[in-house]
Amino acid sequence: MSFTETADENAPHIGALPSGPRGTIADVAGVTVGHCTLDEGAVQTGVTVIRPHRGDAFVSKVPAAASVINGFGKSIGLVQVEELGVLETPIALTNTFGVAAVAQAQIRAAIQGNPKIGREWSTVNPLVFECNDGYLNDIQALAVDGRHYSDAYGAASVDVASGSVGAGRGMSCFDLKGGIGNASRVVEVAGQTYTVGALVLANFGRLPMLTIDGTPLGRVLAERAVTSVTSAASASSAASPTSALPSKPEQGSIIMIVATDAPLDARQLKRLSLRAAAGLARTGSVYGHGSGDIALAFSTAYTVPHESDFVALPPVLADARLDPLFRACADSIEQAIIDALWSATSVTGRDGHRRLSLHDAVSDLAQLLKQSS
Amino acid sequence: MSFTETADENAPHIGALPSGPRGTIADVAGVTVGHCTLDEGAVQTGVTVIRPHRGDAFVSKVPAAASVINGFGKSIGLVQVEELGVLETPIALTNTFGVAAVAQAQIRAAIQGNPKIGREWSTVNPLVFECNDGYLNDIQALAVDGRHYSDAYGAASVDVASGSVGAGRGMSCFDLKGGIGNASRVVEVAGQTYTVGALVLANFGRLPMLTIDGTPLGRVLAERAVTSVTSAASASSAASPTSALPSKPEQGSIIMIVATDAPLDARQLKRLSLRAAAGLARTGSVYGHGSGDIALAFSTAYTVPHESDFVALPPVLADARLDPLFRACADSIEQAIIDALWSATSVTGRDGHRRLSLHDAVSDLAQLLKQSS
Amino acid sequence: MSFTETADENAPHIGALPSGPRGTIADVAGVTVGHCTLDEGAVQTGVTVIRPHRGDAFVSKVPAAASVINGFGKSIGLVQVEELGVLETPIALTNTFGVAAVAQAQIRAAIQGNPKIGREWSTVNPLVFECNDGYLNDIQALAVDGRHYSDAYGAASVDVASGSVGAGRGMSCFDLKGGIGNASRVVEVAGQTYTVGALVLANFGRLPMLTIDGTPLGRVLAERAVTSVTSAASASSAASPTSALPSKPEQGSIIMIVATDAPLDARQLKRLSLRAAAGLARTGSVYGHGSGDIALAFSTAYTVPHESDFVALPPVLADARLDPLFRACADSIEQAIIDALWSATSVTGRDGHRRLSLHDAVSDLAQLLKQSS
Amino acid sequence: MSFTETADENAPHIGALPSGPRGTIADVAGVTVGHCTLDEGAVQTGVTVIRPHRGDAFVSKVPAAASVINGFGKSIGLVQVEELGVLETPIALTNTFGVAAVAQAQIRAAIQGNPKIGREWSTVNPLVFECNDGYLNDIQALAVDGRHYSDAYGAASVDVASGSVGAGRGMSCFDLKGGIGNASRVVEVAGQTYTVGALVLANFGRLPMLTIDGTPLGRVLAERAVTSVTSAASASSAASPTSALPSKPEQGSIIMIVATDAPLDARQLKRLSLRAAAGLARTGSVYGHGSGDIALAFSTAYTVPHESDFVALPPVLADARLDPLFRACADSIEQAIIDALWSATSVTGRDGHRRLSLHDAVSDLAQLLKQSS
Repeated sequence: MSFTETADENAPHIGALPSGPRGTIADVAGVTVGHCTLDEGAVQTGVTVIRPHRGDAFVSKVPAAASVINGFGKSIGLVQVEELGVLETPIALTNTFGVAAVAQAQIRAAIQGNPKIGREWSTVNPLVFECNDGYLNDIQALAVDGRHYSDAYGAASVDVASGSVGAGRGMSCFDLKGGIGNASRVVEVAGQTYTVGALVLANFGRLPMLTIDGTPLGRVLAERAVTSVTSAASASSAASPTSALPSKPEQGSIIMIVATDAPLDARQLKRLSLRAAAGLARTGSVYGHGSGDIALAFSTAYTVPHESDFVALPPVLADARLDPLFRACADSIEQAIIDALWSATSVTGRDGHRRLSLHDAVSDLAQLLKQSS
Repeated sequence: MSFTETADENAPHIGALPSGPRGTIADVAGVTVGHCTLDEGAVQTGVTVIRPHRGDAFVSKVPAAASVINGFGKSIGLVQVEELGVLETPIALTNTFGVAAVAQAQIRAAIQGNPKIGREWSTVNPLVFECNDGYLNDIQALAVDGRHYSDAYGAASVDVASGSVGAGRGMSCFDLKGGIGNASRVVEVAGQTYTVGALVLANFGRLPMLTIDGTPLGRVLAERAVTSVTSAASASSAASPTSALPSKPEQGSIIMIVATDAPLDARQLKRLSLRAAAGLARTGSVYGHGSGDIALAFSTAYTVPHESDFVALPPVLADARLDPLFRACADSIEQAIIDALWSATSVTGRDGHRRLSLHDAVSDLAQLLKQSS
Repeated sequence: MSFTETADENAPHIGALPSGPRGTIADVAGVTVGHCTLDEGAVQTGVTVIRPHRGDAFVSKVPAAASVINGFGKSIGLVQVEELGVLETPIALTNTFGVAAVAQAQIRAAIQGNPKIGREWSTVNPLVFECNDGYLNDIQALAVDGRHYSDAYGAASVDVASGSVGAGRGMSCFDLKGGIGNASRVVEVAGQTYTVGALVLANFGRLPMLTIDGTPLGRVLAERAVTSVTSAASASSAASPTSALPSKPEQGSIIMIVATDAPLDARQLKRLSLRAAAGLARTGSVYGHGSGDIALAFSTAYTVPHESDFVALPPVLADARLDPLFRACADSIEQAIIDALWSATSVTGRDGHRRLSLHDAVSDLAQLLKQSS
Repeated sequence: MSFTETADENAPHIGALPSGPRGTIADVAGVTVGHCTLDEGAVQTGVTVIRPHRGDAFVSKVPAAASVINGFGKSIGLVQVEELGVLETPIALTNTFGVAAVAQAQIRAAIQGNPKIGREWSTVNPLVFECNDGYLNDIQALAVDGRHYSDAYGAASVDVASGSVGAGRGMSCFDLKGGIGNASRVVEVAGQTYTVGALVLANFGRLPMLTIDGTPLGRVLAERAVTSVTSAASASSAASPTSALPSKPEQGSIIMIVATDAPLDARQLKRLSLRAAAGLARTGSVYGHGSGDIALAFSTAYTVPHESDFVALPPVLADARLDPLFRACADSIEQAIIDALWSATSVTGRDGHRRLSLHDAVSDLAQLLKQSS
């Protein structure tokens, strides 16, 4: 029996709120995600695209806002999101040195869809987030190019894969294999039902900090001989023992994308996005110096047309009613990080570097978690 | 045997970093704290003063910065701290409607110490934080006045009490008795030893969210019949059963003061202060809408003179070396919140409202925590 | 002929946009202003209150946002305005050391109007801005108390006085007499007519920087012998010549309140408020270190109820349509600063300190301005 | 006689502070600038590079901070500058759709200089600002590539050209030809002499707003028949009359780079950078909705090493001494904008679009300015 195949059954459910049917960001109606994965020897990286809706992102802009929890990051696009409170492109995730190529591809795609951009119309604001996958991936190769963005965009669907896929291919998390994680929560607010969905690109943390649903798993694992982790790595790969040693702390980061169908304006979405910091902290992060920790939240409840005199919003939720959504955000982010660890498969990359998946590294994972629950 | 007396022995130690000798913010050399407690029937409130050093706070300003995690708060003084990165008065904590009286008292004290203020010199920036203790305290009585600030200031010492004292007198936390909490951590950075101290005014949270060192204690307690908490309240007080029911969620808040002797500039202190959000989250908070969650960090490593052409800083720590301090901040905030719950005594206030201390509410606390550790 | 009486006719009109009928902030329908002026020897100060509408400010909150251009200031209330984007009280202006007394009075008034505040309801967020009038006013006397707030509130009407009144009583501007200034502009946007009104508390600047409608009047005046200003002061008052010398630069500040009936959300109002910086700069300010330069904008187009599940906004203006409002903001702020200088009367205060009004200081003002237009 | 050749003599000197010897950003010792200009038919664009010092920008980082005055912009790099307060690459300027290519080139150059980047070391933070030159330049052609960055970098020297060069090639300003502008100011602070240098990429504004040293030149020109400007255009080019009509307001932007040798930390540099808004406003801008108005200030007084435990700063100026630097910033920005207009040459670009230089458009410029001074 492969542990990985049954992983989803075993991941603990965070918090008291129920998950949506898919347990992914696509539980928010209209949201789709596509991955393009590069898996060729030392090149272990990729691109992930989140489309807020199936229409043209420039013509029909969704309200959005971001919280920079720790700004050790090289994203593009946040200055304008902060000022105007809308997205103009799909959200793209990739490695740190792939941002430029992906941004360029977003610009080309926007122009293709709207030839007035940069002529009769203003320019378009590309939005690309990144984490540094340089431990597994030969990031200096600058392997990501525009086609990978197009491929990821074209692959967008409601069936959202998690783990070592897309931008998550080369990512590490708690010295284990990280990557893409998903989760969702359903809440009742003011007599209505709303969904909060989360997708994370998880690439942060040192093993001793790893906490799963309150269980200090990393502490337990760290108390075992470090060599046990190393030997597990050795056993399942050709990597040298040292290749499984922790990379330096400053090479982390996590990007946290939060979607909701609740009617919120940009100011409220900024409040919502910050609650990702709570979910992140519960997994063991203290927002390390070198970790670019950024959360962005958007709403699908209405769109802002590119050309209009007025913007008609639906009634937005009163701020005093936001607590369930805040909880849903924190819980789904924590759950999505766990999902990234749970879904990831072990990957070997540049210079024989190897990251073990949580399941490969900890054969008695279920037992460890049961003991403490 | 009184449980409360041995409480300190039983509180779990958060994280791997060691505590300072006192386990309070006063482990940072030079920092002193004073409380003035008002305990008269419906008036259950007070003032707490934190002095960064023993000199004149206006003449010798300490570097400082704050993070507003959730700005549902009525503090005074943060605009100037954000701009100039220094404190000009001791830090004062009180109830929401006591801010004005305490700020006025700070102004009077500053003028008394420096008669040039508002004449030859510029004015002084009072700094007062608050939480709403209106469940236990008759906040509409506006009972806090300037003498209470003076008394608290005069009482400042290195022996720092925690619990239902000073500004913490009327505060609630996770539907239990909250108040003042303290903690400290000692870290090695770049071959030097530094201390991070924390003092919180804890007045946030609903019982079901309470998490202690990863243990979802609140969930466990909530699964017991709600009446058991109520009856415990009834058993130990004259309060009616309903008086122990949770107050509304939006009436919370936590103020988190972080002191360190590490040489940091204001930009770095802002980074440090934000890590309080991680410690707060680990206790169960998602920074609820109505909770004014604010962290302020200051350094005692140098002072900025009021009158000078240049400011000579010692070499400051490189940002890439800050991770141990970030962890110390998060851990000491989490520990301080637990300390507030651990140290608090049950209090009955206005209209017979009563908050049970954690120890009074949960007779088998030690057992519960042991089970899951 | 008294120059002052005809002053309004002579003040240059800034920019191409027309003024509203009153040329005050009260051109925005529903806005009223009241002053309470303290004029007793060394006490030259006061309180000004701006009511966004005639209803209860707590029950019907107006959307609002602020820009801190230079945060050398001691206001109270901005933390919550930034988070929630609404006002809960009238806006109050006073001297730096009067903030606490006025905030306390706002709290008392809010409780009186809504006894649930601090009990069933959350607390109220007082909002008080300040400038330092310590050159003319004995600020150490802490002369402002709660009755002055009540008096100013009670006096609120659409007939808004400018000059040496209310909070403006003791203020200085460009080493001349400053105080309250008003202006308004009417714009067409998207086929609709909107009004932008401004009220400033002007207490900033050194004489050589004074610029009126592009004319470097201060430079001209500074090129005249400094003694001429001094002697003018001597001629018209019992003040010693030195009492008219410039106070130190760091004791300035300007508060800029912008009202509009255009339908804008809080994010857009923040954008609008920042344009006050442009109007301010055109009068000669470079946002000096010691000048607390803060702008707050609010809209009267809708209100946010204290108790509700949803907030229904009218269609808000598209961001791409805001330029006329941005211009109206900058122009009305510049105009309001000029109005403060134009309307002020000379005042003698503590220790014989005296500030000449622009008209008293510059007998040939009309001629000087004509020459360069 | 060519008007342009004598332009520098005629440009009015802004303010009372003296200029440095070159009147460019290179008056700050160590700063060099290089341009790469693309002038091929419909491609009218380029790249400008500002090197803070002659060493490796990654190894020796200069302190820096930015103010986003209006965030309608697509820069890359500001998130990390805000967090860490340092630059890691030279500052690059280009057109909106050239950001990605230039960022990629910065990454390649940084890796080439420091092969540890993205491996043993963390990644590098590219910093690229942009304005939209789409009126004159075929921005959809995406003509800028990495070689243009290298060429501009290689051309960096203390001889800094202004006008229609580098990134300024295709820029428009006040419906006239804009581009690169330079200026500097020398100030005495605390007994020391410091230089503030400014370089702007000016691409904002509508003609009627143009103000030069307080003179409403744009108003005067607008009062002349619009056809006169048009016919002047026709006379000097093959462009159709309509090609000189104002482009839409939302396609502007200005990037303002401020250098100083004064010892300031990142917090103080942020304060300094904001004063660019004052200089900008004095030229007629109200920070229009569609204008990405961003200022970045850096200091050459010290560097922050990439690898170290501590950072030793020289004594930094006290905040209370910053006013002369604030004024120098505002004045040099205003002067640099005027310099951009003064130095620009007329340019014809895509679809026969043409922008007249100020000198070509206004034959009696000197006379107009004299009249009102």
